[in-house]
Amino acid sequence: MAFPLPDPMRRALALAREAAVAGEVPVGAVIVRDGEVVAEARNDMRSGNDPSAHAEMLAIRRAAEHLGAGGRLDSCDLWVTLEPCAMCAGAIALARIRRLYFGAPDPKGGAVIHGPRLFSQPTCHHRPEIYGGLGESESAVLLRRFFTDRRE
Amino acid sequence: MAFPLPDPMRRALALAREAAVAGEVPVGAVIVRDGEVVAEARNDMRSGNDPSAHAEMLAIRRAAEHLGAGGRLDSCDLWVTLEPCAMCAGAIALARIRRLYFGAPDPKGGAVIHGPRLFSQPTCHHRPEIYGGLGESESAVLLRRFFTDRRE
Repeated sequence: MAFPLPDPMRRALALAREAAVAGEVPVGAVIVRDGEVVAEARNDMRSGNDPSAHAEMLAIRRAAEHLGAGGRLDSCDLWVTLEPCAMCAGAIALARIRRLYFGAPDPKGGAVIHGPRLFSQPTCHHRPEIYGGLGESESAVLLRRFFTDRRE
Repeated sequence: MAFPLPDPMRRALALAREAAVAGEVPVGAVIVRDGEVVAEARNDMRSGNDPSAHAEMLAIRRAAEHLGAGGRLDSCDLWVTLEPCAMCAGAIALARIRRLYFGAPDPKGGAVIHGPRLFSQPTCHHRPEIYGGLGESESAVLLRRFFTDRRE
């Protein structure tokens, strides 16, 4: 019997589905503090002509704007459907996110458990607690379907 | 006799000085295409409560918005006064910046010739041409003065 997915990851997956409908690579992210959602976002690179508009980046910027406090998100947890890339992992460290929960691993673009493994670098100044694999299969199905549909 | 600094780096240094006056870590960035400045920015993390508001990130977002074309900056060169961090180096790869010119090296936070050396990672999908050290001493003086002033 599978455990039910935590609410923030279910919401992140819903946001990823919204991204796919909009023609964006399906990735969604949610930032939670004290059990409350403080920001959420989906990929928005295409429509915004912004290569940095990954779900995690947008969620971090929105949370920091919402919470103020110099942009530090020390008491915040980030839930995202795909392993963050180097840009997003760098932003997670800069924002001092407390915990990172991610869904599917990303062997090509991931920078947490793949590639540069940013949080394991000696110069990394902040390492969140990291939990991978929550909602992995749901996220992977969304991504696979998106790229298959586009090749047809 | 020292060579005169190229115009984009002189402009990036001027932007770094503006950052210091605003109480931000003095870093400036300029994006050039076909000899014309298409975007420029200085650090703006504090005033915007945005941990991702590094000069390079803001310049990339502005250039991509300005040029459209899906946010790709293939024919653009980025000039920045300090070695980019992991977040910014990741964004440079995502935006497919053609050439990266940076001033001072950053042994603590840099991710180009220090730390994760992002562009040398096997999973890095785009590597700009890289030129370091242009305006290095001017940039380093600005940074040192900024941090000394704040400690006093």
